[in-house]
Order: sequence, then C-alpha cells, then structure tokens
Amino acid sequence: MTTTSLVNFETLIPEDRLDNLVRQWILDDIPTFDVGGLVVGTADKQATLWMKSPGVLAGRPFVDAVFRVLNCRITWNDTVAVEGKYLEASGSNKLALATISGPVNKLLQGERTALNTLSRCSGVATASQQAAKVAASFNWKGFTAGTRKTTPGGFRLVEKYGLLVGGVATHRLDLSQMVMLKDNHIWSAGSITQAVTLARRAAGFSQKIEVECQTKEQAREAARAGADICMLDNFAPEQLKADARDLKAEFPHLLIEASGGITVDTMAEYLSEHVDILSQGKLTQGYSCLDFSLKIVH
Amino acid sequence: MTTTSLVNFETLIPEDRLDNLVRQWILDDIPTFDVGGLVVGTADKQATLWMKSPGVLAGRPFVDAVFRVLNCRITWNDTVAVEGKYLEASGSNKLALATISGPVNKLLQGERTALNTLSRCSGVATASQQAAKVAASFNWKGFTAGTRKTTPGGFRLVEKYGLLVGGVATHRLDLSQMVMLKDNHIWSAGSITQAVTLARRAAGFSQKIEVECQTKEQAREAARAGADICMLDNFAPEQLKADARDLKAEFPHLLIEASGGITVDTMAEYLSEHVDILSQGKLTQGYSCLDFSLKIVH
Amino acid sequence: MTTTSLVNFETLIPEDRLDNLVRQWILDDIPTFDVGGLVVGTADKQATLWMKSPGVLAGRPFVDAVFRVLNCRITWNDTVAVEGKYLEASGSNKLALATISGPVNKLLQGERTALNTLSRCSGVATASQQAAKVAASFNWKGFTAGTRKTTPGGFRLVEKYGLLVGGVATHRLDLSQMVMLKDNHIWSAGSITQAVTLARRAAGFSQKIEVECQTKEQAREAARAGADICMLDNFAPEQLKADARDLKAEFPHLLIEASGGITVDTMAEYLSEHVDILSQGKLTQGYSCLDFSLKIVH
Amino acid sequence: MTTTSLVNFETLIPEDRLDNLVRQWILDDIPTFDVGGLVVGTADKQATLWMKSPGVLAGRPFVDAVFRVLNCRITWNDTVAVEGKYLEASGSNKLALATISGPVNKLLQGERTALNTLSRCSGVATASQQAAKVAASFNWKGFTAGTRKTTPGGFRLVEKYGLLVGGVATHRLDLSQMVMLKDNHIWSAGSITQAVTLARRAAGFSQKIEVECQTKEQAREAARAGADICMLDNFAPEQLKADARDLKAEFPHLLIEASGGITVDTMAEYLSEHVDILSQGKLTQGYSCLDFSLKIVH
Amino acid sequence: MTTTSLVNFETLIPEDRLDNLVRQWILDDIPTFDVGGLVVGTADKQATLWMKSPGVLAGRPFVDAVFRVLNCRITWNDTVAVEGKYLEASGSNKLALATISGPVNKLLQGERTALNTLSRCSGVATASQQAAKVAASFNWKGFTAGTRKTTPGGFRLVEKYGLLVGGVATHRLDLSQMVMLKDNHIWSAGSITQAVTLARRAAGFSQKIEVECQTKEQAREAARAGADICMLDNFAPEQLKADARDLKAEFPHLLIEASGGITVDTMAEYLSEHVDILSQGKLTQGYSCLDFSLKIVH
Amino acid sequence: MTTTSLVNFETLIPEDRLDNLVRQWILDDIPTFDVGGLVVGTADKQATLWMKSPGVLAGRPFVDAVFRVLNCRITWNDTVAVEGKYLEASGSNKLALATISGPVNKLLQGERTALNTLSRCSGVATASQQAAKVAASFNWKGFTAGTRKTTPGGFRLVEKYGLLVGGVATHRLDLSQMVMLKDNHIWSAGSITQAVTLARRAAGFSQKIEVECQTKEQAREAARAGADICMLDNFAPEQLKADARDLKAEFPHLLIEASGGITVDTMAEYLSEHVDILSQGKLTQGYSCLDFSLKIVH
Repeated sequence: MTTTSLVNFETLIPEDRLDNLVRQWILDDIPTFDVGGLVVGTADKQATLWMKSPGVLAGRPFVDAVFRVLNCRITWNDTVAVEGKYLEASGSNKLALATISGPVNKLLQGERTALNTLSRCSGVATASQQAAKVAASFNWKGFTAGTRKTTPGGFRLVEKYGLLVGGVATHRLDLSQMVMLKDNHIWSAGSITQAVTLARRAAGFSQKIEVECQTKEQAREAARAGADICMLDNFAPEQLKADARDLKAEFPHLLIEASGGITVDTMAEYLSEHVDILSQGKLTQGYSCLDFSLKIVH
Repeated sequence: MTTTSLVNFETLIPEDRLDNLVRQWILDDIPTFDVGGLVVGTADKQATLWMKSPGVLAGRPFVDAVFRVLNCRITWNDTVAVEGKYLEASGSNKLALATISGPVNKLLQGERTALNTLSRCSGVATASQQAAKVAASFNWKGFTAGTRKTTPGGFRLVEKYGLLVGGVATHRLDLSQMVMLKDNHIWSAGSITQAVTLARRAAGFSQKIEVECQTKEQAREAARAGADICMLDNFAPEQLKADARDLKAEFPHLLIEASGGITVDTMAEYLSEHVDILSQGKLTQGYSCLDFSLKIVH
Repeated sequence: MTTTSLVNFETLIPEDRLDNLVRQWILDDIPTFDVGGLVVGTADKQATLWMKSPGVLAGRPFVDAVFRVLNCRITWNDTVAVEGKYLEASGSNKLALATISGPVNKLLQGERTALNTLSRCSGVATASQQAAKVAASFNWKGFTAGTRKTTPGGFRLVEKYGLLVGGVATHRLDLSQMVMLKDNHIWSAGSITQAVTLARRAAGFSQKIEVECQTKEQAREAARAGADICMLDNFAPEQLKADARDLKAEFPHLLIEASGGITVDTMAEYLSEHVDILSQGKLTQGYSCLDFSLKIVH
Repeated sequence: MTTTSLVNFETLIPEDRLDNLVRQWILDDIPTFDVGGLVVGTADKQATLWMKSPGVLAGRPFVDAVFRVLNCRITWNDTVAVEGKYLEASGSNKLALATISGPVNKLLQGERTALNTLSRCSGVATASQQAAKVAASFNWKGFTAGTRKTTPGGFRLVEKYGLLVGGVATHRLDLSQMVMLKDNHIWSAGSITQAVTLARRAAGFSQKIEVECQTKEQAREAARAGADICMLDNFAPEQLKADARDLKAEFPHLLIEASGGITVDTMAEYLSEHVDILSQGKLTQGYSCLDFSLKIVH
Repeated sequence: MTTTSLVNFETLIPEDRLDNLVRQWILDDIPTFDVGGLVVGTADKQATLWMKSPGVLAGRPFVDAVFRVLNCRITWNDTVAVEGKYLEASGSNKLALATISGPVNKLLQGERTALNTLSRCSGVATASQQAAKVAASFNWKGFTAGTRKTTPGGFRLVEKYGLLVGGVATHRLDLSQMVMLKDNHIWSAGSITQAVTLARRAAGFSQKIEVECQTKEQAREAARAGADICMLDNFAPEQLKADARDLKAEFPHLLIEASGGITVDTMAEYLSEHVDILSQGKLTQGYSCLDFSLKIVH
Repeated sequence: MTTTSLVNFETLIPEDRLDNLVRQWILDDIPTFDVGGLVVGTADKQATLWMKSPGVLAGRPFVDAVFRVLNCRITWNDTVAVEGKYLEASGSNKLALATISGPVNKLLQGERTALNTLSRCSGVATASQQAAKVAASFNWKGFTAGTRKTTPGGFRLVEKYGLLVGGVATHRLDLSQMVMLKDNHIWSAGSITQAVTLARRAAGFSQKIEVECQTKEQAREAARAGADICMLDNFAPEQLKADARDLKAEFPHLLIEASGGITVDTMAEYLSEHVDILSQGKLTQGYSCLDFSLKIVH
C-alpha cells in the first residue's frame, strides 16, 4: 500500500458524534476542578504535537475533535502527518505533526485525551497495515479484517477506524449491523437451517447473515439456508483451503471467512483464492501503542 | 504476593456507577435490533465462562455488572476464580470460572462486552503483578504505579482497577483528583514556586500537589514551595538515586517519584530506598490481553 | 399470512434498550409533578387494556416495557392478544387484551405512553399486513419493505418493529447499517463507479451497498462497480419490469428494488419475478392509527 | 385565517432545547459510521428544499435546528416559505422553499431527519388549519384543540407546535402542566369533590384543573369543587349543547370542553356559544403527511 | 395547620423521576472509586436516621429514593417521622426517624446525599409552615406561595415539594408551566395588551397568564386583555389593599398576587380578603437548614 | 483579605463542564415551550445585571456560562464587579455589574438561572470571607474550610467555588477525591488501624486519608497507621487545643482538623497554632443569599 492509494477516512464519523464522544471523555477526565488549568491561566499559547516512535499515524479526526470541543485551533503539518502513512519517528527523531493554539489551560485539558487516543489508534493502524502488507505481498485479493474484540463503549470506534486506516476491513461495527450466528446461537436455535431462516425474517435484504461453522457440512447447510457468509472456525490451513475450494465450487457467491488464532505471523498459511476474509482479533486487542507527546512552545 | 494477602477490591466501584457504565457499553453494542437474540429466543440456559490463557484474573465486578444489568445470574467457581490470582490456564487446560444462567438471548447480549472487559482487565493485572513481584523480590517498600496513559472515557476505571488487583498503585484517577504540575504547566506559569503557591490556594489541604522536575534544583524549589511529591522525569538510574538521597535528606516527608520509560524489564535499576514511587505507562497502554470465552451448556 | 406462520419478533429489541427508550418517554411526559397521581394514590388496582378498532395488533413489547419500568405487572390475554394478528375489534365490540396491576398512580402514569405507542405500532402493522397480503395474493416472493421515512429519534424503532410484525421488511434501520447511495450522493461523488468503489473501502464485506438509479445504464454501472442492490427510482411499471429482467439476466445476484410513489393500491402493477424489493414510504408515514384504551377496573 | 393574521411561533421552543432534541435524532440515525458521507466528501455545496404536495407549511424551526446543529447555513425563500400558510405545491409544481449550504456530507446527514420532521409537522398543521377554518366559517369563538394523543418522547413537541401553526390550541403539553382528572382518576379517588379538592392542594393557583365528566351532574359537582374546566366526554351534539348552556348559566366562568370522536367532518355539529373547547385526537394521531425533498444543486 | 389535616404529598413526584434525579446525585458524589466503602465492606448492617434540631420534617420521598436506588431497605418510625409535622428534636433530644438496612458500603454511599436533601427540604418546609401559620392565625383564605428563586436544576423539585409539605403553594414549577409576563416582557413587547394577546395565542386555555404590574392601571389593562392573575409588584401594604379591592370590584375572577420583599415577619401587613396570593422568595432562598445524622448501629 | 491578594478562580471549572451543567439547568427550567419568549421576540436588546444587597460577589463564571450557552454577550463592569470583593450594594444603591446583549427572549431565558446561581454563590462567598477575616484577624495560618454539606448534584460546584472565592478551603470535592473515614467507617471496619491500612492499599500515594477521631488516643492510632489528617470531632475548645498540641509534638506532619458545630461566631475559641483546619458546615448549608436583578434597558 503506497501513500498515493490512501483513502481519506477522516470524515467517516459524523462530526457531531465525534464531538459527543470526545466531550464525554474530557468530562470523565475532569469531574470537578482543574487546578492545573488555574495555574497556567488562559493566555493564548501554541503547542506542538510530536510523534516519538515509528508506526502508522492514525487518529487525526479524534485529535481534531478534542481541540475543536475545547475551542482550540489545530494546524497539521500535512507534508508529514499523513493519516495512514508509516512514519519513521523515534525518541531521537521526533516528528512535529501539528501545531495547536488556544488558551493554555484548554490545551492542557485536552492533552492526555488526545495523546491516549492517538497512541491507541495508531497502534491499531500499525498492526493492521502490517497485516495488509502480508496479504498484498502474496497478491491476495480478499479482506483482511478485525473482529469484535474491541474496547467496550464508544472507544471501539477509534479501533474500528484504525483498522480502516491501516488498510483492513472493520468487520461489523456492532451487534445490530450484521447478523452473526455463532456456535452458541446454533446450539440454542436447534439447527443452522432454523437459525438462518428465522434470522432472515428479521434481517430482510438489508443485513447480511454470517454463520460460524465447524465443518464443511455445516457451511453447506448454512449456504443452502441463505447465509451470505460462512466463517470456518479454527480450521487448520490445509483443511480450510480444501473446504473453501469445495464450497466456492458449489456456492460461488458465498463469502468464506477464516477465523480463530490467526495472526500476522501465521496468516500467510491461510491465504487462498477461495477464502474471502481473514479476521484477526489481535489487531484490536493487545496491540502495541505508539508514543506521542504535546509540548507547549516556550 | 501470595493469594492470602490479596485485598478484595471488588467493591471499590459503587454498583450503581458500574451498572451505569456497563449498561452504556451494551447499548452502544446493540444500537437497534438483536437478530441473533431473536434466533435463540428467551429460554433459560446456562453458560460457562472459560479462561483459556495464563495470567492474573481481574475484572469480576465488571462481569457481575454485565449480567446483573441483563438480569442474569452468575455463580463464580470461587476455588478457582480468585480475583488477583495468577492462573495457569491455556487452550488445552481451560478453567471454568463461572456459570451464568438466564434467558439465552441475554446471555449472548452480554457475552462480548464481558469478555472484552475481562481480557483487558486481566491483561493489566497480569502486567502489574509481574512488576509488583520484581519490586517484592528486591524487598522494595515503595509504590509501583500506573500512569494516566489509560483508555479515554469510563473504560479507564477497568484499567485503574486492574492495576490495584495486580498489586500496584493507580496514581491519580483523573485530572481533578490530585494536582500534577508538569513541564508544560511550569513553563506556562513562569516558575515552580508560583505554580505551586497558586495551586495550593485551590487545592487546600485535601489534594496533594506533585511537580514534574528535570533537575534536583527544581525538586528543591518545588519542595520548598510546598509540593507533596516530586517526580524526577527521565533521570538515569544512578542520577535518580543520588538526587533522591539528597532530597530525602533535606525534605524527609517529600515523596519522590521516578518516571519516564521505566518498564518491568528495567525497573530493577531504579529501585532505591529513597525513591517512593516508580510509575510505568506500559501497565495500561499496549498491555497484552488474556483469552476468555463463554459457551452455552448444551 | 396466517396466524400460524407468525414469527414472534417481541424479543428483537433488547430489554435494556426498550426500557431506556420508554423510561425517557415517561420522563418527558411528566417533567415535574404528577398531581393526578397524588389524587388517585398508590393503592394496588387492576386495569384492562382494551382494543376498540379493527386491525393488526402490534407493540406488545413496548407496552410491556412501559409497565415494567413502572414496576407494574401485565398479563396478556394470549388467546386474543396475538401480536401480528388482525383483530376485529370495534367500539361496540371491545376486546380485552391484557390486565395490568400495580399502584394506581403508576398505572395512570404509563397509560398514555402505552396507548400512543400501541396505536401507532398497530397502525403500521395493519398497513404492512395489507401490503403483504397483496404480495401474497399474487404469490410474489420478493420483499415488501418500508423506507427510512420514519419518526425521528428512538420512536422509529416502534415503526420498524411494526413493519416486521405486519410481515414486511424494515429496510435499513439507520444510516450506518447499510450503505445507500442516492442521487445526491452520485452527483456529489462524480460517478457511480467512483462512489461504489470508495464506499466499498469502508463498508468492506459486512455492509451491503445499494445504489439509486434513474436508468438501466446506471444500474449496470452500479452492478459492475460492486453494488449489492440497485434501486430503480420512480420507474413506470412496465419499464421497471423490462429493465429488471434485463438486469437480472446480466447480474443474477444483483438485488433490484423498486421505489417511488408505490402504495398498497398500486403495488400490484409493480410485481415481477425480477424485482426483489418493493418499498413504500406510506407504511411508516401518514399511516392510520388504531384505537385502544386503558380502564381501571372498579 | 389569512396570512396576515399569522402568529410567528418559531421562537416558542428555546433554541437550546431544539438543538438538543434534533442532535439526538441525528445521533440516533447514525450510530457509527457514515459511509455515504465518506463517498461525497466535505466540499461546500448547495441544496434546495422542495415542497411537493399541497398543505400548510410548518416546521421551519426544526429544519433550522437540524442544519444549525450540523453547522450548515439555511436561507429560506421567505416570499414562498411562510410558516402557517397553505401552499399549492405538487409533484409537477414543486416549490423551492429554502437553500441550504455547507459541507455536502453534512447536508446529507441532516436530509432525512429534516424531511421526516417537516412532513409530519406540516401534516399536523394542515389538518389543524382545516379544523380551524371550519370553526371560523361558523364564526365560533372557542378553542379548537389537540389532545395528548401524540408521539411519545420529544417528537410530541413537533406535533404540538404544528397544532399552533395550524391555528388550534395545544391542550396541555405534558402531564405536569395542567391537571386532568379523567374517569380513571375519579373512580380511584372516590368522588369528584374529593379528587378536585386534593388536586387543588398541590396545584395551587398556578395550574388549572380539568375534570372529565359523563353527566351534567358530574360537571356541576366538579364546578362546585373548584374545577376550572369540565370536559363533557362523548356527549351527543344536542345533549352537549343543552348541558353546556345550563352549566354556563350556573357557572359563567367554567370552561367547557367537548371531546370524544370529534373530527373535522363532524365538528360543526358540536359548535355552540356555550362550548369553549373542541378537542380532536385525529389532529396528532393518524394525520396525513406532506411530501418534501432535498436535492443537491449540480 | 394540625397534623390531622396533613396532605400526603409523598407520591407527587413519579418514582422513576425521583430515582433518576437521586441516582445522578450519587454518581456526581462518587465519580470514580469509593475507598471508604472498600474499608467497611458489604456486610448487611443497620443505620438509624436521627433528627437533631427542631422543625418540620420534609423530604421522606427523597430519602426513600436514595436508599431504593442503592438497594437498601428503609423503615420509617411512622409515629414520629410524620412528613409535614413540626418535631421538637434537638442535639440532646435526638429523634430516631427511620432504620435503614443494607450493605454497609451502600448505606454510607447514600448517607450524605440523603442528609443534605433532608436538611434543605425540611428547612423549606419549616419556613413555609411558619408563614402558613401566620396566614391561618389571621384566618386569611388566600395562597401563601413560594417563587421561582430556587436552586437551579433538579434540586428545585426538593424545594418546591418542601413548600407544599409546609402548607404553601409552589407557584409555577418551571418557566413552561404557567406564563408570567414581567416588567422585562412588557417593555420588550410594547404594551400589556399586546403581550397578553400574543401569549394567549400560544397558551390557549390550558395555561394561565400572569402579568406583573406596577400600577392599578396596568392591572386593569392586563385584566381586560385576558390575564388570569395580576401581580402587584412591590406595592406598599395600604396601596396594595386599596388597589386590590378596586380591581376585584371590577374583575371579580381576576386573581391578585402581592410580591416583593414580603417575609414571614411583614406578611401580616399585606393580608386582605382582596389579595389572593402572597409570594415570598425567602422560603426557598437563604432558608435555614435542619440537622440530621445517620449512624450505623453497632 | 484585600482586593490585591485576590486569586482569580474563574477558570477553575473547565468551560465545557460549566456549559454542560448550566445547559441542563436551563433545560430543566424550560421543559417545553417558552411563551414569554414568544411574547418578547428575538430583537437584540441589552440588559443590566444589578447587585442590590451588600456582600462578596461570586459566581461570574456561572453567569458567563449561562449567557454563553444562550449565545448572548456579556461585558462585566470590571472596576466594580470584582469577583471576591465585598461590595456595598443595597436596594437604594444598586451597582451595575454587567451588560448583557442578545436576543431578548434568550436574555430572559437565562435571567432566573443566572440570578439564582449568583445569589447563592455570593452568599457562600460572603459567609466564607467573614470566616476568613476572623482567622486573619487572629493571624491564624491554618485553613478555614467548608464541608461536604452541599446541595446534591452539580450545584455543589457553585458552593465549593464560592468557598474558594471567599478565601476558605473547599475540603474534598466529592467522596472519591480524598478518603475520609468517619465514625461509621471505623465501627464497621473494626479498628482504626485496619481501616487505614486497607484504605491505603486503594488510595496509594495519590489520595490523602483522613480519620475522624473522638479521642486523642484514636488520633494517635490513626497517625501511627498512616493517616494524613485527623479530624477531632466535637472537641471542646480547650481540649482540642491541648490534644492538638500533644499530637503535633508526636506527629509533626500530621494535619489536625477541628470540626463539629463551629461557626463564624465561635471559631475564635478554636484557633490554635496546632490546629491546621477548621471546617464549618454552615458555610454551604443554610447560608444567606444576596439580591441581584436583571433589567432590560428600555
């Protein structure tokens, strides 16, 4: 993935939702008084946002929202701070990403929320881009994807956004967006056919239905019942590829997802022209974070 | 840290706040319809909560809250599921932590929120306990501590709680709880003395004031101005210990915190009888997560 | 649609979301004091919920939620009050649907919210069932559907639920669930191909993409670009059928939706084996309401 | 009612409440990502708001709020778009009501919420103006009024506002605003006299008390007990007029409301100089909606 | 006012609103951790609620709500703890009002919120009862009333409720409940007649309109324009009585309110058979508070 | 305390929290329509904020927030309206504090909320400054302080802020900020030593721990267990001073607070060089309020 092919996802979350989310984070962080803010006063100052470790920059819209909510102004150094670009920053080679101006107490009220968000979002994007590059290096055309193993609450949007910036698919954003029938659902519903049929009554044509399958036979049942996607759960790589090939022969429009313990280190073994989706929990859970700082210009 | 010395922190967050937090997470995850829930129906079922990777268990009160909010019942296997205990679970040696009963659609509505929280909280506690053990192995009496590098919003309480369960100090829970004057504050306020004096006017006797210092001289100025804690920022280990000793000789009641790039691997170099606090950002940012699952009994 | 084939959609909205929604409605309705409640006191009484005009009953889960939130108890007369069934009630042939017990002030606090919701939800379901019957009478296998012309805010869930109970599809529940690219989007994006390609980058495999088309050529472009659904907007019936047939021949998996001014009275003209979806705004906007009342037993 | 006598009710709802309400509607409609918005980008564009069916225009303040919340700018074509005026629009004679400018993704984020609100509000106003004209044609001086049969939640304010714009009275806005003692209250309280006396203790002088009466005798009891308004429930027209005349003779300051099944088609039968208020549930429940659209100028 | 004539206003605020209000107060008071609660644990204990200074007890429903929200149980000593009764408590003659049982950490989480509310509510009721007794001692039949000088936010309901318990009228509960046109309104609207006429268009028959008047002439204009209440602002006692008599002679149904600097000490001078309402800001602003405590039984 | 030594606490509460708080107050005050606002219209007008009784001005940031939220502009008369200064205003010597401009309906929407807040905040500051002056007149160096006897909910921030402006300490802002172990905690925990030890495990180094003590021996136990502050509860003045002296001799860094029935009239008896803190509940409960008004310029 080269810089020129970057999609700008920055407008994906409506500004009003972003502001709502970020405002709540700031309120949670300062439940009563801001004595530090009292100390610094309200004089207009400038601060520089620095990147201090290497990785993919992601999270600009959240930083924008933090300082928009606080009525500060931010100017990104657009030649450097390219959302989605891998940047070779380090402690000794800090990169100046942006300049933020405003009352100094407000700059500092937003500092920690902005940095914590940026560190995490960039961490997700870095891991995601690494996975996307593995897929690209094999010229695989399917979707590398995240999972629903995200931080509970509104922060999951940061992680889902980080996946996109890193070049992989978000998978469903919440439980209501796509229907996913997992082992627990199948056991409870009685059979795959019953489960899919009933789900379709509510899902109609506007939601896809995915079924987690333990065997090829289950996948065939799911496909016949009308599932859009079959997830082959914890299949060994060779089994996965063979079964996916058979399923595609029978159901050319069925999407096939492989999931279960796949990481950037093992994903190459799972790549196949008959597999459409490889999802990885590690992209949003237990990911490494990047290092940023904010320093008042003095 | 042995099991017998475990403090039970489970009641630290008021039930009402917990429920409020967790309810919002579930609402965020299911903004409209739950087609999967429609498929499984409302029959009363049991589910087992499994631990599948080794580490310190932490997060029981959040799991309790998830299923309390959903009107399900949870019974912990108390001989195994000891909050704060390091458990040798693995994929092939899964540990049954708890049984949860209730309408099956509700069990599944709570599944992912409960697991995602437990994975992260236990991850923080595992890293924290490891750090606490290093300190204990040197018989160091100070506080190993987290920092404010936590997930924005209410989820930070999960991480702060995980620190305590792992045996380390939370550091301040939010910007309003303790006053912390960092480099940015000092630059903006003009001098350490001015900053501390003004902060004390608002903080009174009920809040501590900590000052981030780049030199011993700054720490002396802070102490004389009335700071309760001096944080020696990014000091090399030997410098730290020498300066801490001098400061303690002059200001016996001043607390001294060392911070900046310290990890569980390097912390031994920083231990000193004159240093009271070692804080580590890695305990709550970029920590590894543990693996849990929830399976309907069928 | 016969009673025996009714799907029970009552658990589709998570109880916690329902309660949240309904609690806010009650709070909005009683911003301060309830003098009427003071007058009647808190003695435990029974009330009967009556249906007074003919139509499809829909909205039981909302009524349940109103009285659950108020800590009252409701017992439905299940042999009569069948969700989704057309009931021949009238002013002179009132049907007793349920008995509700609890403190009389709470019964009356919930009365109007419950009745207003039930009237509207049943109105939507009645119109929907009528449309579904037309489709069934022609043995048409596609989806009759609503649109996004619903009441703003949480109340849209009542209307979307009413569609399902009446036997038609909800169409997307919100702007985030499925991607819909309408004329305004296409004009702004430059071309259908560009619009669909970019949308797919964010939508990945988990969301469908629908494109509103003014001509068959546009639909062909959309299908080639990867759209899942083409909506043929305001096509005359014969044109619609001819174009749909051609499109299906070329793109067998493409779903085709007809929309624009179609009502229960005109929908028969649009039915075709090559059209998959007929959507009608009138099902949730300008629908007639049914008549219910709640009377204290005395 | 001529245009010149129109009262401008647009400022009746405080801007902050309006924005709060509308912001929640938009958030509800876009719970996570706006892929359509990503597709169109943020270039500044213009859109035209069109009216496409005949009726009374009502709802401008809500449309203003939608686009204010989204930071767009709206310019109404004031010579045409007169709030409260009956406009002869149609599909073939579309009226350009306003021009809205702003980032195109935001224009489209607000489109559906604005249109759905405007359609419903204008629908209420159209029905209301029709009723007001019947009253005016008989030179009746009383209040035509709505009822509390409104959509639960904040959307009721749209309907109550639509009543005013259409020229009729809102009746009480919520359960706390005026005290209304209906049959259920009287049965529960024991007697009209007891109910009114107790209600007055809480209502004091600042709230009116209305009593629903089944007979003239009940109305006399209510008036003697201090009721401000008696509602004669479901009285046949001739009985209503005779009883109202008698009651007015005895209690000249008592207001008399007729209610129960009265519609615009039957209301003429109920008009009387001794009846002060005619309330009609159909004005806000089961009303027809008008047709509007928003199109990007291209 | 004797005990036997006490009205029980305890159910005036719907339980759900009460709980909502009180829950927010508790959340505000404990934004993160409850270390004190950790110390005491969750053993079930009993606590006694003591009254320690003399005055009118008021606020039971708020105390109920605090402990209901916290899942504790409260038993009032009903022979002593009579809402609205003047109790001769003191530091040396403490009265045991209630016993509260539950997990001790929850008892203490609610302690301060319950006591602070009870102290203030009883303070308002004590001042109110004193004023009511002055009116009764002169056998005056009008309404002693509070004003809108209440604590901003939800706490105003505590004060408005305290007025009722003390035996006086609440005056309007919020700006939307009754229309009040004060000097600022009249100046801005141009004339009393215009202001009242326009207000009536929106208020209809369901809201009263009150006009603040500086002279008898203004009051006459207001009455002729259709005002329900005239408030004679800051009139000297003799002038007030003379003007009120004249106004009543001309407008027998007009209510007359006297306001402006009237206190319990001066109110006797303003009593007149022609004055209907005496309102006093001091009843809810600057009132004395009573002393209560909560002690764990040990 | 002279004007020149005034600390400007106006920025202590983050603007966003202030606006959030104040916006909720205004929404609570106008739940539906603002008929008064309709009457006055939206013409731009000016209003003067007057002070009408003597005392310390406090609350400017809340007034700023009210009118900022309403999009009005405020200009303070800074030579007069000095936050924290005692002003000799009266009914006959009204002081013009500020001019506020904006749409007249918005000026009046904010009027009552602004005045009620300012009256209370200035009341607290006036009482506080009086207490601070007593302490200063004896040249006492300790902290005069408030308590947690504040109005429940967000309004407590007004009172805590008023304390600071008046020159006294806030004491802890909420239950989570500092740990306070009172009699109830000690009884429940078993012993002071156990309670303090356990509290320290959760409080770490970032929160102070205070223990309420009934005897000097208890205070010694608390100090030995690691308490930062001992509160000597309801000690007679001489006993207090003697015990404080002894405790200070043994624990020079222990802070000693005296509390229990101390008022501005009795506080002189409690002053001692060995007592660090004198806290008084009356500063925020049962305080007198000041008189302000807002008048449209006409």
